[in-house]
Amino acid sequence: MAYRLYYWPTIQGRGEFVRLALEAAGADYEDAGRTPGGPDFGAVSRVLFSGEPGPPAFAPPVLDVGGHLIAQTANILLYLGAHHGLAPDGELDRLWVHQLQLTIADWVGEIHDTHHPVGVQLYYEDQKPEALRRAEGFREHRLPKFLGYFERVLADSAASGWLAGDACTYADLSLFQVVEGLRYAFPRAMAREEADTPHVTRLHGRVAELPGIAAYLASGRRIPFNEDGIFRHYPELEG
Amino acid sequence: MAYRLYYWPTIQGRGEFVRLALEAAGADYEDAGRTPGGPDFGAVSRVLFSGEPGPPAFAPPVLDVGGHLIAQTANILLYLGAHHGLAPDGELDRLWVHQLQLTIADWVGEIHDTHHPVGVQLYYEDQKPEALRRAEGFREHRLPKFLGYFERVLADSAASGWLAGDACTYADLSLFQVVEGLRYAFPRAMAREEADTPHVTRLHGRVAELPGIAAYLASGRRIPFNEDGIFRHYPELEG
Repeated sequence: MAYRLYYWPTIQGRGEFVRLALEAAGADYEDAGRTPGGPDFGAVSRVLFSGEPGPPAFAPPVLDVGGHLIAQTANILLYLGAHHGLAPDGELDRLWVHQLQLTIADWVGEIHDTHHPVGVQLYYEDQKPEALRRAEGFREHRLPKFLGYFERVLADSAASGWLAGDACTYADLSLFQVVEGLRYAFPRAMAREEADTPHVTRLHGRVAELPGIAAYLASGRRIPFNEDGIFRHYPELEG
Repeated sequence: MAYRLYYWPTIQGRGEFVRLALEAAGADYEDAGRTPGGPDFGAVSRVLFSGEPGPPAFAPPVLDVGGHLIAQTANILLYLGAHHGLAPDGELDRLWVHQLQLTIADWVGEIHDTHHPVGVQLYYEDQKPEALRRAEGFREHRLPKFLGYFERVLADSAASGWLAGDACTYADLSLFQVVEGLRYAFPRAMAREEADTPHVTRLHGRVAELPGIAAYLASGRRIPFNEDGIFRHYPELEG
């Protein structure tokens, strides 16, 4: 069965966490908004407002699984993890991986808000003074706190080098993506912080070398980072 | 087996979503920070920094389940839902409930940020101009959007009156809590918006009448809303 992913066709955004899991698993999927003729921006709204098939979703990404829609990034990964060997088998082990993913989701929300501290209904240009303050707090306080947490988790499981258990899970893929995005958005702060988080840096490199991920990153399917996504490089937010 | 909940002892906060599930289920639990001698603010940090038992967590709430720690509110509810009849049995049905919970989590994050748009490392008093802008956008755009979404979900399942399937799930309990909190924080905006969301209002009333919840709300265990939690009433943010 082929999956069908509904997400914005010109950004990595939250959809990228799903794309990475699908690519790592070698799953058969279609990226509905990206057609041979170019980006189809209507695909997302058609699925959000049709109510068919399945129940509605608040926002993309949405994954069509044999006619049933699943939304919320971490929730989609919960499903894919169980069906594609990207999560352990036991209930408590699965909850641990999901806990890591939800912590990453909180981090991603804070990264997004460095350029949108007032609200998603406004452009970045309309909230620049607030963004300067929020980005400073993020660089100085939140970035080291989140990175340090994942460094500690990885140090605890240093024998395997993965976040949980002895195999790669969707949380590892997601941590890779956050490191990628942060290196793009805050290169100076990341260079400084990564000096203290060698396990995180090593995990990033290891995920990049997974066969499915390496092939994906080298392909045209990987959309470059840009200033419409979650991870944006605005020099003025670098401090 | 008695659960042990680690959360800040003087606020509802994110821990309240867990408390409501435990109370609705009639589960045996101890609220570790709330002792007969008064609030123990150290309980949370002891569990976060001990690393024992079980793996570390980034932030509270944390639930000790027979010596194993589970964190992240929605993740704890995923566990409690499965073990206490607060979620349906089928995989896709459970994911739907979890999707609703994660959407509520996003909403709660936005509510929190109405008074903390610059960052959690600063007091509200140090980010008031930014909070005025963020709260305005929340009242005008995000509040009707989230409420309207849940109204639509409830209208789709009007036959049962619950968000998912034919029984109360943890997502219903959480939606109740968000309505309670918003009525406290933004009473004028909520009175206006709830006029258009009768299914949401009815769901709120129905949860309040569940035996476990009614008993809890009438007890001293329910901490009143205050200006240290997520839902804060600041008249200046009402517009």
